[in-house]
Amino acid sequence: MASKPSIPKGTRDFSPSEVAKRQYIIQKIRTHFENFGYQPIETPTFENSETLMGKYGEEGDRLIFKILNSGDYLAKANERYLSEKDSNKLTSSISEKALRYDLTVPFARYVVQHQNDIEFPFKRYQIQPVWRADKPQKGRFREFYQCDADVVGSTSLWQEVELVQLYDAVFTDLGLKGVTIKINNRKILSGIAEVIGASDKLIDFTVALDKLDKIGEDGVKKEMIAKGISETAIEKVQPLFHFTGTITEKIQKLSALLSSSAEGMKGVEELQFICSNVMDLGLSSAILDLDVTLARGLNYYTGAIFEIAPPSGVSMGSIGGGGRYDDLTGIFGLKNMSGVGISFGLDRIYLVIEELGLFPETVTSTSKALFFNLGQEETQYAMKAITDLRRAGIKVEMYPDNVKMGKQFQYADKRSIPFAVIVGGDEIANNNYSVKNLVSGEQHKLSFEELKAMLA
Amino acid sequence: MASKPSIPKGTRDFSPSEVAKRQYIIQKIRTHFENFGYQPIETPTFENSETLMGKYGEEGDRLIFKILNSGDYLAKANERYLSEKDSNKLTSSISEKALRYDLTVPFARYVVQHQNDIEFPFKRYQIQPVWRADKPQKGRFREFYQCDADVVGSTSLWQEVELVQLYDAVFTDLGLKGVTIKINNRKILSGIAEVIGASDKLIDFTVALDKLDKIGEDGVKKEMIAKGISETAIEKVQPLFHFTGTITEKIQKLSALLSSSAEGMKGVEELQFICSNVMDLGLSSAILDLDVTLARGLNYYTGAIFEIAPPSGVSMGSIGGGGRYDDLTGIFGLKNMSGVGISFGLDRIYLVIEELGLFPETVTSTSKALFFNLGQEETQYAMKAITDLRRAGIKVEMYPDNVKMGKQFQYADKRSIPFAVIVGGDEIANNNYSVKNLVSGEQHKLSFEELKAMLA
Repeated sequence: MASKPSIPKGTRDFSPSEVAKRQYIIQKIRTHFENFGYQPIETPTFENSETLMGKYGEEGDRLIFKILNSGDYLAKANERYLSEKDSNKLTSSISEKALRYDLTVPFARYVVQHQNDIEFPFKRYQIQPVWRADKPQKGRFREFYQCDADVVGSTSLWQEVELVQLYDAVFTDLGLKGVTIKINNRKILSGIAEVIGASDKLIDFTVALDKLDKIGEDGVKKEMIAKGISETAIEKVQPLFHFTGTITEKIQKLSALLSSSAEGMKGVEELQFICSNVMDLGLSSAILDLDVTLARGLNYYTGAIFEIAPPSGVSMGSIGGGGRYDDLTGIFGLKNMSGVGISFGLDRIYLVIEELGLFPETVTSTSKALFFNLGQEETQYAMKAITDLRRAGIKVEMYPDNVKMGKQFQYADKRSIPFAVIVGGDEIANNNYSVKNLVSGEQHKLSFEELKAMLA
Repeated sequence: MASKPSIPKGTRDFSPSEVAKRQYIIQKIRTHFENFGYQPIETPTFENSETLMGKYGEEGDRLIFKILNSGDYLAKANERYLSEKDSNKLTSSISEKALRYDLTVPFARYVVQHQNDIEFPFKRYQIQPVWRADKPQKGRFREFYQCDADVVGSTSLWQEVELVQLYDAVFTDLGLKGVTIKINNRKILSGIAEVIGASDKLIDFTVALDKLDKIGEDGVKKEMIAKGISETAIEKVQPLFHFTGTITEKIQKLSALLSSSAEGMKGVEELQFICSNVMDLGLSSAILDLDVTLARGLNYYTGAIFEIAPPSGVSMGSIGGGGRYDDLTGIFGLKNMSGVGISFGLDRIYLVIEELGLFPETVTSTSKALFFNLGQEETQYAMKAITDLRRAGIKVEMYPDNVKMGKQFQYADKRSIPFAVIVGGDEIANNNYSVKNLVSGEQHKLSFEELKAMLA
């Protein structure tokens, strides 16, 4: 192989400092997931194709990575599709497995498969990579992690209250203060559709309304009319064009607006329960906001919808989202299992924390000291200290080769190791260690106990 | 979908307690990897096929999982192989990516690709799953984790010394005392082959010799002769049939036996350095043993070879292994990069720890307390306490629905939650909490501060 090796597009190598920073975020998320009573599960990287196919729409099916059957896969290939060279139809006869596309469908499959071993309500979290054959672009990868917490088997709205608190706890702990937790409810959206008398135009309506800040009330109305929403309909929801105030005020406006829609009023009631309890219990640093344009996963969610916006000033899309789905496991034959869950967008959270300089310096902490290699006898002496320090849980390293001091200093510098420990004949004779602070340049001779205390 | 969903053969779902136990082991390994100065990297789940193919032999190529190209993959399929239905030859024209088969080849690829950003010697660790289309059987899976630590860019034998110490540190910390770290050297094996005058019979020789305990000296010799090794050759290595004693004694025997082989003597010298320094520094709980039959990865390793046997009494194959390879990155065009590394077998270590009952009870620790749900007002009161407890880092849960107490007790029991906190009108009026120890049955009324102190 003459040219430098590379990796598939849309995938990434993670360097030591990147792994450390990602682990830092994952660890915080994991800690709070567990604090809130969520338990970890893991599912296989690949699932049987029939588990995944047809669950994410036609576009989703296309974006699922399929694994070629092992062995003589053509022996079982569909003859007709093979001769017609119909890639799409041939696939199922030469590929039985596919890479996980998200964590939700495997979770639903897990719940149904293990239903007799699970105590419901089942609060599970899952932090694993997923794969999508999307066109790679800035911030969009073909392999990326999802961090999901979901609970199934209870319709209690206290779960939604807790999930808002969980978002607040994680982002506060990450130092990401001032994220906005946007909340809406699928039933509110249904109510709006009912009031404007155009269920099929609901997405056009919310997309247009979402542009209020950018193109103003007149612009939005023009777009709505262009999309076929009647002026009368727009008139009916006029309050949505001045939808400001506290959450309580917003809920009051919605209550008046949707009074004619039973489903809309149910949505108002749910929002009221969640928001009032969240506010009553208080958030540490996040801001709760009711956003009626929030319509993510419209075909999927049936109750609450969440989305997280980063702190103001950071230009980045949502860094998390979720909601309630009334029939998660129905696709696998287990009916009446309401679920609600949230997800953290690891890659984007990473970028936001990096941009705001919020990773603690210690996150990429390397060894505390590098012991220089000045020869065989010196190294034997040094290794005794190193062995004892490591047994005390202190990270230290020996430079493996007896090369020029300059090269060893360079190694310590590149690795950001703060102290050099230099042992020569003098130190061996006096049973001590010369320790040089590589930042200040200060140098001291220390006994082993002093060295250990300094590095601990 | 009528039937219960399932997962592909050779893959596993991990339940909450299994994830917790696996994380416990991984965390210990990670801690010691870092203590010894190894830094984490992660590589993509799939690599370009050309990175993997041809690196693991013909059998390996067959066992690599290939990913079908996205879109109209048949458009680029090789016409001839398609019409001949030659699955094997067609693959490269319809599949450009493949799942990671081990962590070593991706590491070599990483080192070459990022060589300008890496400070050598580069000590990296990597803990990620790999995939092999092997026939699944007891203890052999198609998806399993590898936990590898390798260093490249130094020929210093101090690395081998440290890797033995690293094994000792991890297994000691896991409570797995008395593992045997078997050591051998490829050059010793070459020396033996030289002495018996049959390099091509080396594997037959070591395989037969390894059966000494089972079939006795005569049995072994019979097998050797059956394999075409001459009686004169066997005579020359007669000391290997009584290869007992301390490591020092064994090294002396080898030194006498291999005196005519320059390479063999180099191997003796390396073994001598590694073993004497390891013994000088001392091991915490592992036993170092020289095993001349140890021949794993014969085509791969060039110096030291390691293999870990579980504590005696546990019937299980090796739970780790490794060695030195003088040309790790040569396959990707970067010459003269000697490397040495070790691997931990997560699945087997798990089984050994389980068998010996060494997982700490706290490993699968669930929430400290379940707050019972007795109604809306009660839950609002309880949620205030829960919110404060979680902010103090204490794991507690609210039962989400107002159902019969029996069901809530059952939930706490199944989840192994040790305390129930019950809040009724009485507790609200007195601003306290009834706490029931679900093991002893004891019940107390506590103030919030008392509750917090008890659960902390």
